[in-house]
Amino acid sequence: MLEITRPTLLVNEKVARVNIREMNRKAALNGMAFRPHFKTHVSHEIGRWFRDEGIETCTVSSVEMAAYFQKDGWNDITIAFPFNRLEINMINRLVANGRINLVVEDADTLRYLNGHLNGSVDYFIKLDVGTHRTGLPIESDFSSLISNNEQIRFKGFLAHAGHSYRCRSHGEIKKVYEDVSELLGNLKKKYPNAFMSYGDTPTCSIIDSFASVDELRPGNFIFYDLMQHQITSCTFEQIAVCMAVPVVAKHPHRQEVVVHGGAVHFSKDFIRDKNGNPVYGILVKLTEDGWEMMENQHFIKKLSQEHGIIGVNDEEDMRQIKVGDIVGIIPVHSCLTANLMGKYTSLDNRTIFHMNRSGV
Amino acid sequence: MLEITRPTLLVNEKVARVNIREMNRKAALNGMAFRPHFKTHVSHEIGRWFRDEGIETCTVSSVEMAAYFQKDGWNDITIAFPFNRLEINMINRLVANGRINLVVEDADTLRYLNGHLNGSVDYFIKLDVGTHRTGLPIESDFSSLISNNEQIRFKGFLAHAGHSYRCRSHGEIKKVYEDVSELLGNLKKKYPNAFMSYGDTPTCSIIDSFASVDELRPGNFIFYDLMQHQITSCTFEQIAVCMAVPVVAKHPHRQEVVVHGGAVHFSKDFIRDKNGNPVYGILVKLTEDGWEMMENQHFIKKLSQEHGIIGVNDEEDMRQIKVGDIVGIIPVHSCLTANLMGKYTSLDNRTIFHMNRSGV
Repeated sequence: MLEITRPTLLVNEKVARVNIREMNRKAALNGMAFRPHFKTHVSHEIGRWFRDEGIETCTVSSVEMAAYFQKDGWNDITIAFPFNRLEINMINRLVANGRINLVVEDADTLRYLNGHLNGSVDYFIKLDVGTHRTGLPIESDFSSLISNNEQIRFKGFLAHAGHSYRCRSHGEIKKVYEDVSELLGNLKKKYPNAFMSYGDTPTCSIIDSFASVDELRPGNFIFYDLMQHQITSCTFEQIAVCMAVPVVAKHPHRQEVVVHGGAVHFSKDFIRDKNGNPVYGILVKLTEDGWEMMENQHFIKKLSQEHGIIGVNDEEDMRQIKVGDIVGIIPVHSCLTANLMGKYTSLDNRTIFHMNRSGV
Repeated sequence: MLEITRPTLLVNEKVARVNIREMNRKAALNGMAFRPHFKTHVSHEIGRWFRDEGIETCTVSSVEMAAYFQKDGWNDITIAFPFNRLEINMINRLVANGRINLVVEDADTLRYLNGHLNGSVDYFIKLDVGTHRTGLPIESDFSSLISNNEQIRFKGFLAHAGHSYRCRSHGEIKKVYEDVSELLGNLKKKYPNAFMSYGDTPTCSIIDSFASVDELRPGNFIFYDLMQHQITSCTFEQIAVCMAVPVVAKHPHRQEVVVHGGAVHFSKDFIRDKNGNPVYGILVKLTEDGWEMMENQHFIKKLSQEHGIIGVNDEEDMRQIKVGDIVGIIPVHSCLTANLMGKYTSLDNRTIFHMNRSGV
């Protein structure tokens, strides 16, 4: 058993590696490229787990993250975030050292790139396939956005079905994918040479056969989390991260246990239980080789900066939990939890750094 | 004007110093000690702004934070979080180097301290005065928690009226304080020698005259934020932090502007607008010497890992905002935003580090 004294993010390497392998195999079976999104783990060492499977391309969501992974030898990186012209100097440095693919969604930005880019890039046009976060509607006139000069090459379209996060069953996830697939198929008829990059963990996890998609780009699937479990993207056993937190107080009269584990550890992302109450994590039992579900479900129901309040409405469970214990909590959103924690502890007690605390 | 290319947390030092000075003056006028909570800024340099006002005592919310501030010469620190016995070694190191005050709320933990503490500490009993986060109800029998041995000295009671965060007017804040004050007054009759430590930004900001309180312990007031503004703890002009973020896309057809500024910058804490919709920040105009409110209110209405989506339902404002601009956003919760950003930029362009990126 690990010796833990304060909030610690555990990673089950074995489970994470299986998650990588299975998604990679799915892409290969479909004849698609695989370009996993690294915004979830943001770690040199964990990036190498992908390389161990023969994966040489990745996706990131910021220029800073692209620089971080280029430093560890990633030479083909898509920055899946609208190109920010203010970062052109940094991008020019990255382009000088490796292949960088950009995302563009307006003609003025494309002109800016033409005027200021040294070196050459491929770029994608960002599509809005129903999420309404970024991107252009599929029925747009893309002609002013398609440039075919030598230096700045139109590669294809990039789509993210983020609205799949509202699903709560495989049926709903399949429906999201069918709709997106139809949109992409129609676009492909108009632009037969355009490369279609697509990714979101729920559909990529549940769908087996992908039409009209040339590349898979999911990220969260390496760890999954409580949110993905509620969406039905994963089983409990596929979740590869767990927070270990100290119990610092018990209040049986209000059926509550207080842990050191708050918004600065978990983030304030939440899902809702069946009564509509917010849930910031679920209590699990730590074991010799990881963690396991408890018979009764107990949730973190309130979260402040450093405190987490777990509702424990079972007397026997309340008796079992002692002040001074370390308990496990499956986080709601593993990407944000990892970002806050800045490092991981493997089950064999190695420290694995995240970009945010690299080397600290 | 500062040269900003990516999400940057601005701090207006002048405003922050006035906030410190006024709270310090209020404590002095009431004859109370002042022990500001440093969980908001968590910065050596900003800690020194307090020292410039003659303040030599502080509060923190974790053992890690206590170590960080002790390193910069803070020799009288209260760790306002239930004592975690698993961190006893670290606490023994801190106690060897300076005065540390602890918080205890069960007899078993007090016995543990008696058996394992080297050196001596003062401790507080944590009260629950209506927030129901930690602490004991005021009508509890505290006798098993009051030890008067030489080494582990009962100092008094520590209360935090966190439920004041639900207030939306000065009248409501005053009501919270009146109720707490009555509770503390009754307790003071039973324990006339107990020292009463009290703090939360809303009541400490609005109340002028404090009965039954020996020490003020607020934290957020140094910066304030959009949440405190909604609570009515502060005016807009008292807010000392603002995020500067690049505009990366515009979608006039859905009245939206996309900025690089997401959950990894702001946190996902939110308030609600008058229609009940979540608000993650408010758009402001950056100026030569800081920022100012816009005539129309536009909010960040959606937030994912790196993206912020601002609703802009005014055509002229939409025209004014250009891709490639830097815009200002007042964050909802300054403590969590500072924790994520890990550093500040002053208006005269100095970098000020937070514990999370100290020296990085």
